Amino acid sequence: MSQQKLSDLNTYSKSDFVTALANVFEYSPWIAEQTAAARPFAGVTALFAAMKAAVDCAPSELRLALIKAHPDLASKTQRAAGLTAESDAEQNSVGLDSLSDAEYTAFERANDAYRSKFGFPYIVCVRRQTKASILRDFERRLPNDASAEMQTSIEEICRIAALRLDQLVASDDKLKVHGRLSTHVLDTHGGKPAAGVAVVLTELSELGASRVVARTVTNSDGRTDQPLIGGRPVPIGSYELAFRVGRYFAERQVPMSDPPFLDQIPLRFSVSEPEGHLHVPLLVTPWSYATYRGS
Amino acid sequence: MSQQKLSDLNTYSKSDFVTALANVFEYSPWIAEQTAAARPFAGVTALFAAMKAAVDCAPSELRLALIKAHPDLASKTQRAAGLTAESDAEQNSVGLDSLSDAEYTAFERANDAYRSKFGFPYIVCVRRQTKASILRDFERRLPNDASAEMQTSIEEICRIAALRLDQLVASDDKLKVHGRLSTHVLDTHGGKPAAGVAVVLTELSELGASRVVARTVTNSDGRTDQPLIGGRPVPIGSYELAFRVGRYFAERQVPMSDPPFLDQIPLRFSVSEPEGHLHVPLLVTPWSYATYRGS
Amino acid sequence: MSQQKLSDLNTYSKSDFVTALANVFEYSPWIAEQTAAARPFAGVTALFAAMKAAVDCAPSELRLALIKAHPDLASKTQRAAGLTAESDAEQNSVGLDSLSDAEYTAFERANDAYRSKFGFPYIVCVRRQTKASILRDFERRLPNDASAEMQTSIEEICRIAALRLDQLVASDDKLKVHGRLSTHVLDTHGGKPAAGVAVVLTELSELGASRVVARTVTNSDGRTDQPLIGGRPVPIGSYELAFRVGRYFAERQVPMSDPPFLDQIPLRFSVSEPEGHLHVPLLVTPWSYATYRGS
Amino acid sequence: MSQQKLSDLNTYSKSDFVTALANVFEYSPWIAEQTAAARPFAGVTALFAAMKAAVDCAPSELRLALIKAHPDLASKTQRAAGLTAESDAEQNSVGLDSLSDAEYTAFERANDAYRSKFGFPYIVCVRRQTKASILRDFERRLPNDASAEMQTSIEEICRIAALRLDQLVASDDKLKVHGRLSTHVLDTHGGKPAAGVAVVLTELSELGASRVVARTVTNSDGRTDQPLIGGRPVPIGSYELAFRVGRYFAERQVPMSDPPFLDQIPLRFSVSEPEGHLHVPLLVTPWSYATYRGS
Repeated sequence: MSQQKLSDLNTYSKSDFVTALANVFEYSPWIAEQTAAARPFAGVTALFAAMKAAVDCAPSELRLALIKAHPDLASKTQRAAGLTAESDAEQNSVGLDSLSDAEYTAFERANDAYRSKFGFPYIVCVRRQTKASILRDFERRLPNDASAEMQTSIEEICRIAALRLDQLVASDDKLKVHGRLSTHVLDTHGGKPAAGVAVVLTELSELGASRVVARTVTNSDGRTDQPLIGGRPVPIGSYELAFRVGRYFAERQVPMSDPPFLDQIPLRFSVSEPEGHLHVPLLVTPWSYATYRGS
Repeated sequence: MSQQKLSDLNTYSKSDFVTALANVFEYSPWIAEQTAAARPFAGVTALFAAMKAAVDCAPSELRLALIKAHPDLASKTQRAAGLTAESDAEQNSVGLDSLSDAEYTAFERANDAYRSKFGFPYIVCVRRQTKASILRDFERRLPNDASAEMQTSIEEICRIAALRLDQLVASDDKLKVHGRLSTHVLDTHGGKPAAGVAVVLTELSELGASRVVARTVTNSDGRTDQPLIGGRPVPIGSYELAFRVGRYFAERQVPMSDPPFLDQIPLRFSVSEPEGHLHVPLLVTPWSYATYRGS
Repeated sequence: MSQQKLSDLNTYSKSDFVTALANVFEYSPWIAEQTAAARPFAGVTALFAAMKAAVDCAPSELRLALIKAHPDLASKTQRAAGLTAESDAEQNSVGLDSLSDAEYTAFERANDAYRSKFGFPYIVCVRRQTKASILRDFERRLPNDASAEMQTSIEEICRIAALRLDQLVASDDKLKVHGRLSTHVLDTHGGKPAAGVAVVLTELSELGASRVVARTVTNSDGRTDQPLIGGRPVPIGSYELAFRVGRYFAERQVPMSDPPFLDQIPLRFSVSEPEGHLHVPLLVTPWSYATYRGS
Repeated sequence: MSQQKLSDLNTYSKSDFVTALANVFEYSPWIAEQTAAARPFAGVTALFAAMKAAVDCAPSELRLALIKAHPDLASKTQRAAGLTAESDAEQNSVGLDSLSDAEYTAFERANDAYRSKFGFPYIVCVRRQTKASILRDFERRLPNDASAEMQTSIEEICRIAALRLDQLVASDDKLKVHGRLSTHVLDTHGGKPAAGVAVVLTELSELGASRVVARTVTNSDGRTDQPLIGGRPVPIGSYELAFRVGRYFAERQVPMSDPPFLDQIPLRFSVSEPEGHLHVPLLVTPWSYATYRGS
């Protein structure tokens, strides 16, 4: 799908409008159809609200059909048979296309358990998750009853739709679907921002391989030119942020022990609010450091 | 060798004295022999000084023979042929009996390069080292000339001897051959020492497997009942100290995010002074922490 | 009263025993008299428990008489007429002999209000207090009813007695009546204890002048040779601990701004547990510092 | 002087231009006169550079006359006789209109010593200073020779002129004459910005009274809506920033000791770069805090 201007969507024929938004909700063009008559929309926020209202007001058979239109997560069979382009990109973003054997087994077991209990696929907005957080979410949701899970599934479907809409529609207003993860290195030995510190952000995984998410260097303000994660949700999960401070101080001829007391400093933390702004700074000397959840 | 009282050593026949101290210097009883006449010694410090003086005053052929009396580090052939009990225990303490293939190759290459350049084995006091620090020491010493390396080898031999003497001889005074690594967890959320926090100390290795050195729990004072490392040198090298703070705060019903922002906190640092006292405390809330090199 | 050995007290005639302990409870030798028969005491803890039991079991007229035997706090008339040596020293210790006019007025008003409501003097163990905390204690207790205040007064009288007994009697065991206030300066710029830092502890007062309690310099371990307050209760109240760090770093030629960003660092905190151990460390670079309630 | 648009100044008659800028340099319209011909100026930066060049190129008699056109600092006689409106406002800004007796004596002595040594008044750009820093500047400059002091005086006069020009002329570009002092309170007990904390910034003085510079409350982001000092140079000097954290935590029902360990936290620091951005944050729990020079 190429990006569309909201002003264009407002003036399209109903049919063009539905075509443009057909896959915002997976295989469910009826939602765009029911929304078309409410045009024009003042912004993408209003458009999304209208589509969500259509879902919320739909009879439960239709809602169940919407749920069943979604593929299993990380299913090799379904991936082989082909997903929508949107589903495919979303699943890849979280690494579901390159699972370790242990992870694949865990996902398959979870999918099967879920589908056999509820009769519909487990759905979660994967762009807000990591592999590890999805498996925890499975475990948390499996004991629920079907009505609670239908509700949760619809909520996750709406989160998926909001992210698709955000990518698809250009509008003056923005849906609040993005978060931000940033850092800042203060050299409290020299009393100034630490410039030129190599920083690596890694997503941690218990079952499979950890994944490097960002690799960058601090600028003259001790920050990174781009947020470590930005312009998208910050996936729920566990991370390690590593700072090469030994080299930084060595380059400045700061007296240190041999080997240096501190070299590569790892900060390990979890993200719980994908749409929030999480700031994880480092205050550092060759002999001490501190961090905190900032904002 | 069973432990000996200094007062007994002072009154033994020369022959018994030499037997008792024969292996303080590897396969070199002549050092004990030359020291016997200087008895009685006021303490183990004076005894060690006398033995070291005998080494320092020896003609260079004898010093070279002393050096050559030592085995190669981590040599499978020599280990199979048998080391002195002391050498064997020392090499095992640092993990030289369970090297990964990559490590074994690295040691063998280093030993060969050293021996072919200098004509005598590479010697280092392994109880003051980790596998990684030994390989760095190799690299640092290989470019030296033979006379500098003979001097360094004698110094390392004296360090080995001091540690053997410390274990062998009971005396009122003590050789300064031991260091200490300790920690302390302060709960700055509650304003009190953090009791019951699980702590794991791991020795890090780049080529092989990391080794857990200590696994303990903080007491009511936020400290560990025993130092993490004590009663021996703290091996030069790189370590990770991990604190299970997520569980600590969860057990106290402290409000946290889900998943908790901080769960297992890793502090990574290096030891450079095996005989020093290194204190690595953790000041922690569910949202922040700090550490520093204390004393 | 000169110090007495517990063993002597155990063998004195009843009359000598009573003479020796007559003023442990202000003008109330009957308490020592009732305790004499329970001799010998294994330690001062047992002796104090026996005296306290005598007070607790006394009929309420006697307990009221004990309360009324105490002088008003900070009363110029009573000070002129003469207090027991013990009361005089205790009141002086907290500065009640050198009140500002505003303080004197506040104490007089409080005393009068208390005495006119309850018919007996306001009693507090002044060695556990500062002028400011006494005035807060007044305000907190004035709304109480007479029976609660009799109980509180007896508790305070027992605290006074315990401190007097601790000073008077030499015994192997010790009453738990002392606290400790200590500090520690860590130079996290240099990675070592900060030696030679001038430290001043001041007791703060809202109505009158602040009082310097201790003036010292850190030793090679970054600590003070003596605790800032020790061998006595740490008075409840508000304090400022000031560290001359600008000079410390200047003497070490550490590059700083002109004027230095940090020069004299004040830490302001309150003491709430006179018998506890309060540790207030400073972690400092020329550009940053941190403190926390340690133990 | 009312504010002037640069575009207007560029098109004024020479006479109007000189009138408008006459007092940018104290009682020295010749500088504006010499600058008029270089119009039009692309911005205020270029205008200031041209005026400064006129001063730098002037013969030394004229430069001396410029220096002598300035009043003594804090002189009661001259203040009574009348200063230019600009001088008056500048001197008041730093509190020179309300000196304590000790301060007044110190200024008078310094002025006299300076004038009698050099034959011209001591000049400093007071908007970049505090009373205390001016007295230190006096002491530092008095030992200089006359030629160095003429140079320094001209530099200070140009700083005064730049600030006057910045206020007087509206232009798209801005002279770099402003600094900023800001703070940020992080509640590391709750893991969020501390909102609603009362903050007071005081300028400290050794000889006279301290002056409250700003009194504000943190907003929902833990910052202050306006910088503590902004839109002007941050005067060189010593400051105390006090945070009412006891009340903040009490209002959130956080368990604390009685009295609270921390109540009003003072941070004492000095400013050395009036045109810089100085950020002094507070990371705080009821039991610990930290600060650092941020940016």
